[in-house]
Amino acid sequence: MSKTYTIWCNADYPADAQRMLEEGLRGHRLLWPAQRASSNLVAAPPDPQLNHADIAFGQPDAKAVIDSPTLRWVQLSTAGYTRFDTPEFRSAARRKHLTLTTSSTVYAEPCAQHLASYFYAHARQLYPADAIQLSTRVWTPRMRRDCVLLGGQRVLVYGYGAIAHRLIELLAPLELDIIGVRRTPRGDELTKVVSLDEADSLLSQADYIVNILPANADSEGFFDAARIARFKPGVIFMNIGRGTTVEQSALHRALAAGEIAEAYLDVTDPEPLPPEHPLWTLPNCRITPHTAGGFAGEAKTLVHHFLSNFQRFLKDREMVDVVVH
Amino acid sequence: MSKTYTIWCNADYPADAQRMLEEGLRGHRLLWPAQRASSNLVAAPPDPQLNHADIAFGQPDAKAVIDSPTLRWVQLSTAGYTRFDTPEFRSAARRKHLTLTTSSTVYAEPCAQHLASYFYAHARQLYPADAIQLSTRVWTPRMRRDCVLLGGQRVLVYGYGAIAHRLIELLAPLELDIIGVRRTPRGDELTKVVSLDEADSLLSQADYIVNILPANADSEGFFDAARIARFKPGVIFMNIGRGTTVEQSALHRALAAGEIAEAYLDVTDPEPLPPEHPLWTLPNCRITPHTAGGFAGEAKTLVHHFLSNFQRFLKDREMVDVVVH
Repeated sequence: MSKTYTIWCNADYPADAQRMLEEGLRGHRLLWPAQRASSNLVAAPPDPQLNHADIAFGQPDAKAVIDSPTLRWVQLSTAGYTRFDTPEFRSAARRKHLTLTTSSTVYAEPCAQHLASYFYAHARQLYPADAIQLSTRVWTPRMRRDCVLLGGQRVLVYGYGAIAHRLIELLAPLELDIIGVRRTPRGDELTKVVSLDEADSLLSQADYIVNILPANADSEGFFDAARIARFKPGVIFMNIGRGTTVEQSALHRALAAGEIAEAYLDVTDPEPLPPEHPLWTLPNCRITPHTAGGFAGEAKTLVHHFLSNFQRFLKDREMVDVVVH
Repeated sequence: MSKTYTIWCNADYPADAQRMLEEGLRGHRLLWPAQRASSNLVAAPPDPQLNHADIAFGQPDAKAVIDSPTLRWVQLSTAGYTRFDTPEFRSAARRKHLTLTTSSTVYAEPCAQHLASYFYAHARQLYPADAIQLSTRVWTPRMRRDCVLLGGQRVLVYGYGAIAHRLIELLAPLELDIIGVRRTPRGDELTKVVSLDEADSLLSQADYIVNILPANADSEGFFDAARIARFKPGVIFMNIGRGTTVEQSALHRALAAGEIAEAYLDVTDPEPLPPEHPLWTLPNCRITPHTAGGFAGEAKTLVHHFLSNFQRFLKDREMVDVVVH
């Protein structure tokens, strides 16, 4: 007879996704702590039940994971894993033979589509059209001239992972000149890839800069005033990585001065961005409320992804979206 | 020695595009009538100079074209050719061996990108995000759930020409289930194509309906109340063809009732849509001001397209975008 596992889950999912998880784990033990993680961005407080679980799915506290004598596998319900991206966690996990996986695969598609929506919305000037619809409702000939034909422009994509890979597929028909930026090029990328240092010398030629950098000690404030000063005048800047990778006051200044023509931001620092924050009122700063990864059916897709990995776990096969193993 | 042609042009282009035209026609005679066509949508009044021209480029009056004893070729500076799409014009043109070409190729790319922008903007809920930015600036969890993952949805595209062809290329990475609708399928389409009659039976299954129908006697009010009543509840309706192909009061009613979830309109009837028109205020009706074909450099691209066809004309080769020959 196969082993019965205890799975801890603190994800705050709708009933249909919870049922799906319960059914997928039939024959095993499912622990739902009373306090759920209501947001993907914040860990719930440490839960003593983690000390009896083999597997955790959701957003457990990083220290509680390390302290648990029983945990063998943690799957985060996010693509990001900032709280676990420390030398301490990595070495403790290795010592304890604990595997950490994420839900990266689930978010690559919506995030790439979100970035594509920025490219197309900018090209076709949808935001100015919306502003006209919400105000004067007067058509001006200028609107046509402000549109941009996508094709041939130079694009720098910082952070070449699953999202960038999919973005390049989505934009392929446009024949943009896309260069990926990655700490360590692997050779399986869909486009030319350069290192972060090499990218600096390309900054002045990029018509679009796409920031998908994850949050970690190296990326903190990566796009600072000095780096922003190297941008090509009139560049379009997009960020769906993490708000903390950008020096926001420098971004604000460059936008207000028109040095950056437009910014499309899905992430800010802090989040939610307070209603009185000056970024909101810049007419050339478009903000989406950290929706890049979202989609109808998100919870069920996350559960499906977890259950697929659970089957691989049971059969001792290599799991998907492994970060630490 | 080669013949010197007289070319009449009433397009109201910026200086650089005019210079480009003058240089491309060096050695020939260029007539600029005093009254230019300030919009692509309206013909200038009949100009007696057409009676001395071999070629016309821009927006000549259709009757003046027929009456001219000298004209051999007319290239319209638009993709549409409604004023020339009559049995009278066609038979007169054939009798007089007059060729009519359009600028269709120039507009396929921006129009297809415009439609793609609607798909992505809807999927990623950019308009509601903009509305939040312009009002409360409060992020709500609902915003994530309202996003839609593009992939697998059924799309009906009415009017399979150069725009639809390019749209299907642009959307190909999303693996949507796209069906084209065309009077006479040719066999070179990128996707399954059905007739207008067959399409009626598919209306109730389409998640997206894309209208690129040209304006003519057959398409007038094509999307009427009866046809709209057959739409799948919650459908997304897009129109970048002509406003007159839709019974606008029926569209308004279906949008107000929520039967059509959202409409994305680049064309209306009339144009510009008067500021007091009720379509403007529907929160689920997104209007762009007939910008689908526009882009920076439009005039120069139109001139370039005309000059390419002029070279073909000189060498008696088959021209591009021929409508009547």
